[in-house]
Amino acid sequence: MLGGAAAVAAGATLVQCSGTARSAGTAGTGFGAATEPFFGPHQGGVATAPQAHALFVALDLVVPPGRNARETLAAVLKLWTTDAARLTQGRPAIADTEPELAGHPARLTVTVGLGPGVFDRVGLAQQRPPAVAGLPAFATDRLDPRWCGGDLLLQLCADDPMAIAHAARVLLKNVRTMTRQRWRQTGFRNAHGSQPAGQTMRNLMGQVDGTVNLREPHEFDRYVWDDGAQRPWFAGGTVAIIRRIRIELDTWDELDRRSKEFVVGRRLDNGAPLTGADEHDDPDFTAAVNGIPVIPPNSHIALARHRTDDERFLRRPYNYDDPPADGLTTDCGLLFVTYQRDPARQFVPVQQRLAEADALNPWVTTVGSATFAILPGVTSDAEYLGQRLLEGR
Amino acid sequence: MLGGAAAVAAGATLVQCSGTARSAGTAGTGFGAATEPFFGPHQGGVATAPQAHALFVALDLVVPPGRNARETLAAVLKLWTTDAARLTQGRPAIADTEPELAGHPARLTVTVGLGPGVFDRVGLAQQRPPAVAGLPAFATDRLDPRWCGGDLLLQLCADDPMAIAHAARVLLKNVRTMTRQRWRQTGFRNAHGSQPAGQTMRNLMGQVDGTVNLREPHEFDRYVWDDGAQRPWFAGGTVAIIRRIRIELDTWDELDRRSKEFVVGRRLDNGAPLTGADEHDDPDFTAAVNGIPVIPPNSHIALARHRTDDERFLRRPYNYDDPPADGLTTDCGLLFVTYQRDPARQFVPVQQRLAEADALNPWVTTVGSATFAILPGVTSDAEYLGQRLLEGR
Ligand code: HEM
Ligand code: HEM
Repeated sequence: MLGGAAAVAAGATLVQCSGTARSAGTAGTGFGAATEPFFGPHQGGVATAPQAHALFVALDLVVPPGRNARETLAAVLKLWTTDAARLTQGRPAIADTEPELAGHPARLTVTVGLGPGVFDRVGLAQQRPPAVAGLPAFATDRLDPRWCGGDLLLQLCADDPMAIAHAARVLLKNVRTMTRQRWRQTGFRNAHGSQPAGQTMRNLMGQVDGTVNLREPHEFDRYVWDDGAQRPWFAGGTVAIIRRIRIELDTWDELDRRSKEFVVGRRLDNGAPLTGADEHDDPDFTAAVNGIPVIPPNSHIALARHRTDDERFLRRPYNYDDPPADGLTTDCGLLFVTYQRDPARQFVPVQQRLAEADALNPWVTTVGSATFAILPGVTSDAEYLGQRLLEGR
Repeated sequence: MLGGAAAVAAGATLVQCSGTARSAGTAGTGFGAATEPFFGPHQGGVATAPQAHALFVALDLVVPPGRNARETLAAVLKLWTTDAARLTQGRPAIADTEPELAGHPARLTVTVGLGPGVFDRVGLAQQRPPAVAGLPAFATDRLDPRWCGGDLLLQLCADDPMAIAHAARVLLKNVRTMTRQRWRQTGFRNAHGSQPAGQTMRNLMGQVDGTVNLREPHEFDRYVWDDGAQRPWFAGGTVAIIRRIRIELDTWDELDRRSKEFVVGRRLDNGAPLTGADEHDDPDFTAAVNGIPVIPPNSHIALARHRTDDERFLRRPYNYDDPPADGLTTDCGLLFVTYQRDPARQFVPVQQRLAEADALNPWVTTVGSATFAILPGVTSDAEYLGQRLLEGR
């Protein structure tokens, strides 16, 4: 029997694993040992150069008998902070039952957010940043409740799917008595190292996707990071919008290349605007031939482009490709994730224009939507994520 | 799993695992351009050093009105052959509607198989290799029909999930009027380049998984590749078994490390047998302390080890980690995939022993099972996969 053998197997030397895999990795034999910082004014996973894989899990708070909602939320956030501080640095979580899987974080980031409704639930409605609210309905939305909402967001990104699987396991099992998983979405980009560094990803429609985006620190300060003016505890946080947008590849594939390029306003081969030659050339929306605009006014980029200085946000999307429902060929699309200080001023006007007239609309359908307050970062392990909110300091 | 050792078919000049060699030519631009050969006596994806990502799709044949089953199957196999020959080499498929997504195959392999039932359906029951048959029921099986069976297998492996998504899209949409998807399973290993080349993968139980395996060309000839003695058309083919094995992590996590190591018979930190120090040390099943075996006789490796010279096969598993059913924390496990000439002689006796007594059984549950005849390779584009079967030559 198992126990008997266990009791007497003198030959089996047990070695604690802390750091074994990590030191192998840091010997320059693989990118698995690479880490992203955990402590800082902002959480990782927002300004972080996008990792190849992502998992987004939305959870609802389940208050165990004899506890109240606020202490339950605090307990979840404490556990996640402690474990994320370790896992992102390639160290096993406290009581990690598969510690060997922790040694290759591959730039793991753990990003925690709160849904708009949870502030009420924990009796802190006044502390909800006004920018953290549900989005208005858009005419093109076809929302399925199973991809919407959530009290809590756990966003995991890494260059190795094993790092995500392990971190998800640890972080979710520790809170299983206090949460219920609401939805879970997995996304990917090109594998780390498969293409030259810095190359813009393609989405599953074949388009170069991510050319125009926020990049400079001053842009992040202006458009992404909350300054705490309205809710001091939220300084350094941001608001995430996660839209699940299905791509209708069956009909998209019927379109010829030129039509596809007119739909977006950019070339398929290198992502250049139809008025330019290279990906990063500025599009010229005034250029016309025989009075006909070269970039159609209802093309995706013409409508998505900011019309006021406010209408800008960080896009950090991932592709998804899930098993299709019976009888269909493909169920794929974008986990279209944006980060901004104030969706109402930055995101909504753009989404509104797109919903009204985007030439891309026949081939994309938004089936899920959720908004989360991404908590400010913590600067030392004396603090836990959300502490300033929950303890009023 | 195969490490640096290229598996070369004896007597053939074709090198099966050339991805590493080719990637030298892509240094600086990323490994996305690396390719595996398509033409040869065997299909890729079996002896090929395991890529980081895999998609297994089982389909049933749907015979369109006015056609018969055999010509339908031939049409599917012709389309797949033509497109796989191109996609695996980084070239767009015929009429590829997203040709830019084809340029980074990242060692894409396309592996096509036929389920046991389809031979009857196309009126070729006599041509079915006797080894291609359903498995017997095992006491520990808890099979769910939604992960079982299938007329056709499409196995896609690559080091980049984008390559798989694109190839799956192209290959599946081309046959959508002639097939219905039955199940679809996605698996992963550590990301390419995240760890030193040749390092054995870990599964989600944290174990080093894949230490003892077939590696040498003569082993492939002996245990994997059919020699055509019974069905000449099948020479160069093999039989794939795909078992979906759920891992019960919730209870596994309750076990202490020593018990976990006794369950398998190997150390968690480096995968060494309990009687050795290094991963590739030979286990000593006779070693005992005070008369009690150091490696328990009902440990996984003691029972899985071949007891006759026949009981060996290639294991090429992938981890899976899918969204759990409502109320559960995790739905993960192994897509346990093996290749062998004759499951009844090679695989079944081992699985039988494991079903009877494996110490691992309380923590693993087989929920899916399927068997496929992996077709022999094609040696030029004058031939299509399965042609020797369907046209009797
Ligand atoms: C599946 C749905 C979508 C697809 C396939 C898609 C694709 C693209 C592509 C190919 C570009 C051009 C390259 C680039 O600058 O990244 C682009 C630009 C952009 N998209 Fe989308 N997009 C989608 C949905 C959305 C949505 C829902 C929004 C906002 C509500 C949005 C906002 C933008 C913005 C702001 C730009 C940059 C425009 C500019 O200033 O040039 N996109 N998108
Ligand atoms: C989730 C289920 C399973 C897990 C987690 C698992 C895990 C392992 C591990 C950790 C090893 C030791 C390292 C190695 O040599 O690879 C091993 C060895 C092995 N396993 Fe499994 N295994 C599973 C299911 C199976 C099944 C279903 C079979 C066959 C029916 C099998 C056949 C083998 C064989 C043949 C070996 C090598 C034994 C030797 O000669 O040393 N395994 N497995």
